[in-house]
Amino acid sequence: MARNSSEPKNTSGRFAYEGLERVIHEKARLIILASLATHENGLLFTELKALCSLSDGNLSRQIQLLQEEGFVDVWKGYANKRPRTVCKLTARGRQRFLEYVGELEKVVRDARSEQTAKRLRLGVSGAIPAL
Amino acid sequence: MARNSSEPKNTSGRFAYEGLERVIHEKARLIILASLATHENGLLFTELKALCSLSDGNLSRQIQLLQEEGFVDVWKGYANKRPRTVCKLTARGRQRFLEYVGELEKVVRDARSEQTAKRLRLGVSGAIPAL
Repeated sequence: MARNSSEPKNTSGRFAYEGLERVIHEKARLIILASLATHENGLLFTELKALCSLSDGNLSRQIQLLQEEGFVDVWKGYANKRPRTVCKLTARGRQRFLEYVGELEKVVRDARSEQTAKRLRLGVSGAIPAL
Repeated sequence: MARNSSEPKNTSGRFAYEGLERVIHEKARLIILASLATHENGLLFTELKALCSLSDGNLSRQIQLLQEEGFVDVWKGYANKRPRTVCKLTARGRQRFLEYVGELEKVVRDARSEQTAKRLRLGVSGAIPAL
């Protein structure tokens, strides 16, 4: 197969994306953190469940793990004699989530820059007219 | 705890990010696909291993799974009497990866928009001067 020797290939770990921390990257936890990050004053367990489309069991497990990591605070109380659970991102959780989002931006940037480069190459070869 | 009722809370599934497809989202597979997406002519197994900082065993397993999904093509051959394996993203793999990246952009946008909103709120309260 023809291969272009000008492509960067030997940069060790260039695509390892070490900042995609496993605790945050797992999909259920990522969507919980994304929801909490956009609701500064916290969310009721029931609201979080609806926003994330997660089951009671899965949401409980993930919230407990995020609490153990110090990413989420949980308050249990009562409103109108009914039990209520409120979840809120901690300062540490917010910081680590934003660091993770910074790494996601790298993934997006890498993918988009190659997409642009590909369009330009196609333009040069005449398959798609260069603008 | 004081909570701001003007925050959007009840949009069901708003943060489910359904486009974060599990096959691609798993970290090892994500970094393999990101590497291949930026090397249009394919990569040797050894190059991919270095770029992704993955073990032989893990890389082999993930490549096989991506091949079964039709996301990656694999060629086995010889160069200078030594076995060589070349991996390349398929058209389907590229398309699905770019769709996934589109969903990552939503996560980033949601997180950044809240960060901006928070800075503005802090500015109004006087904690950080509004620009």
